[in-house]
Amino acid sequence: MSMFGLEESEIATLVRAVSGDTNLERQTIEDRFARATWSGLAEPGDRLAGRAVRQLGPSRALTAVVDHWSAARFAAELTQESDPVPEDDMRQAMERWLPRLKSDSALIALRQAARFGARLFTPEDALWPARLNDLDWHAPFALWVRGTDAALAGLVNGMALVGARAATGYGEHITMEASAGLVDRGYTIVSGAAYGIDGMAHRAAIASQGLTVAFLAGGVDRFYPSGHDSLLTRIVDNGAVISELPCGSPPTKWRFLQRNRLIAAASVATVVLEAGWRSGSLNTAGHAATLGRPLGAVPGPVTSAASAGCHRLIRDYDAVCVTNPDQMAELAPLDHEAGVLHPEPHSAAEDAGVLHSTETTRLLDALSARSARTTDDIAARSGLALAVVRARLGMLELDGRVSESERGWKQAATPSTPKNAQTRATVL
Amino acid sequence: MSMFGLEESEIATLVRAVSGDTNLERQTIEDRFARATWSGLAEPGDRLAGRAVRQLGPSRALTAVVDHWSAARFAAELTQESDPVPEDDMRQAMERWLPRLKSDSALIALRQAARFGARLFTPEDALWPARLNDLDWHAPFALWVRGTDAALAGLVNGMALVGARAATGYGEHITMEASAGLVDRGYTIVSGAAYGIDGMAHRAAIASQGLTVAFLAGGVDRFYPSGHDSLLTRIVDNGAVISELPCGSPPTKWRFLQRNRLIAAASVATVVLEAGWRSGSLNTAGHAATLGRPLGAVPGPVTSAASAGCHRLIRDYDAVCVTNPDQMAELAPLDHEAGVLHPEPHSAAEDAGVLHSTETTRLLDALSARSARTTDDIAARSGLALAVVRARLGMLELDGRVSESERGWKQAATPSTPKNAQTRATVL
Repeated sequence: MSMFGLEESEIATLVRAVSGDTNLERQTIEDRFARATWSGLAEPGDRLAGRAVRQLGPSRALTAVVDHWSAARFAAELTQESDPVPEDDMRQAMERWLPRLKSDSALIALRQAARFGARLFTPEDALWPARLNDLDWHAPFALWVRGTDAALAGLVNGMALVGARAATGYGEHITMEASAGLVDRGYTIVSGAAYGIDGMAHRAAIASQGLTVAFLAGGVDRFYPSGHDSLLTRIVDNGAVISELPCGSPPTKWRFLQRNRLIAAASVATVVLEAGWRSGSLNTAGHAATLGRPLGAVPGPVTSAASAGCHRLIRDYDAVCVTNPDQMAELAPLDHEAGVLHPEPHSAAEDAGVLHSTETTRLLDALSARSARTTDDIAARSGLALAVVRARLGMLELDGRVSESERGWKQAATPSTPKNAQTRATVL
Repeated sequence: MSMFGLEESEIATLVRAVSGDTNLERQTIEDRFARATWSGLAEPGDRLAGRAVRQLGPSRALTAVVDHWSAARFAAELTQESDPVPEDDMRQAMERWLPRLKSDSALIALRQAARFGARLFTPEDALWPARLNDLDWHAPFALWVRGTDAALAGLVNGMALVGARAATGYGEHITMEASAGLVDRGYTIVSGAAYGIDGMAHRAAIASQGLTVAFLAGGVDRFYPSGHDSLLTRIVDNGAVISELPCGSPPTKWRFLQRNRLIAAASVATVVLEAGWRSGSLNTAGHAATLGRPLGAVPGPVTSAASAGCHRLIRDYDAVCVTNPDQMAELAPLDHEAGVLHPEPHSAAEDAGVLHSTETTRLLDALSARSARTTDDIAARSGLALAVVRARLGMLELDGRVSESERGWKQAATPSTPKNAQTRATVL
């Protein structure tokens, strides 16, 4: 028998294995396999993919791609009275997804997951972090998890502690106090396993015998950063390491930004402990604010550039000034059952603005500075439609940020724009 | 002839002298003398005294006290349809005022004022700080001033910089930067001449050739604190020292608290630079908030108790988090069209640059590359205030341009390129 044109028996065996349930029925297996496939087919946060999976169900949405539905038919199936799907958007979406539709890529990811003891969670699972559903069409298709059930369940009391990689002694000190103090108050510490503030937040939680959860921007089979290999191994033993991307997926700048939305969405509140003016942690703060989650920031010396981002959040983005674990806990007291939070609807203009800079980010992520890549290859890696890739490469070439040789495209030797330019545009 | 039962000729001579006007008419002299008397009769902020003076005029209100009006009559004269004066309140008020009604106390204060060159200002004067009228019945009856007309006029652009006496090096540093930066932007620095933050605010303003005004809690004939005698003398020469209490009045705790209302009311905005959890400067902040004046607070390390009050203001009292002079100026931008004092011929940034480099040059000139020098020695050689020297040395040390040993400061052997130049420009 076959499933999406693949041999069904291996799929069933693998899905049962990574789901930790030997009694799954065929339709469940098909749905879970479809979600696993979607998690590698569309880039994190792909709104139209999320909408298709939500409206049609993961299997039928995947069938639409596998069967090469016309854009007109696909758009018509998704269109709701109040919210039409432009055929052109649908065509571009198919152009993003189809280059990645290789017959065995989901199987390879499943085999790798099984090898690493990673488990697959979908929204139907009891341990699925329900707050992620607040992301609506931007919610992840599935989660790949290495770690304990206790940590997943503990996400109900998750508090995000984030900050800059370039932390100062001051920043690390207050992070340690915050993490330990919040563990004492019953919170699970959520962060991104980066150097600096993130790493300290996880470490202090483990040292305090608390639960901690790390969201990664790449697959959970290969820890990033590699310098945090042993820390992440300890998090697997004492907490959970989670990604929405299947095993084998490398982290990219785009994926880091999207990973931040999971940290913010999975937590009752987000606290930025130390962050420079353009720190990536401000992006996490922006997601928290967009989701209506309480946001706190710890002040520091105004003479320290490492605290400038925190002051910016307090000053310009209504972050609450928090100076100790008690005040952080006040952001979202555990006594209160966290109600369902309603994500604010994005305006079309916002979407357009974000799309523009985010496409560039994804494109640059898909390029190498050393080896030239073909546009087909770049389209597959970036998850962008081939036509978009071609058009945007041309613009980037004009900016001197990419160059073309007869073997393909690569990043220009000396990028003329500051790396953080796009980050800044999308932050908040 | 007599005035309130006193010999009129000496009163007239003294009032003309302290008013700097030899052509005052009898009624004006009587009113000014009455206000001078009221300033010693009622404690600052005495609401019923303020109401009596406002409704009856200073002379008639004083006559009521001198003539021992019954509480019933006094209350009846003040009562307005919408706002009655309880007879009991009036009786208590008379019991407060009458014991102070000594026949010659106002004369003694006037003689002392004339001796010290202190001048008497009343609400009718062109140089009266009009914002004080926002205090309504709590407004001062008169102001006793030692200083320049320019400084009084400059109060139109007054910015209150206040903070704790127990300031840290961090607090003094940011106060110096704030004061100098605000002077560059055309503000007059208003503070309370206390040790710590207040003193630094005045000093840095003077060092920047700016205008500064100190409000005292006692008479302007005896400077308080005595350790700031020479600073206050310099403020008299370059700015103004003001009190609502007549000469000879000692400062009291109550008067300090009431003095704070004048600092807040006379200024366009108030900034608290460093303050502990219970610092008196929070009282000034409270007055500013009550008056609807913009309020800013500078954050600091959460590990420093000296900044706890600032964080409290930001967190619980809606103070704006301000981290540099630009943000402080944004609290109450000056109307340069009005061009009262400093129409800017060139940008504030240029001014700041010039100022800083000038001071830095003077400081480096006063240092040797071979022999260490004490801060006292450097202050004397450079002609800069000791506090300015200390603060700026700290910054130069960060830049690697000076070094400190136990014997003092000297120029660094190999001055590194000022890599912090940008930080300095943007942070403060």
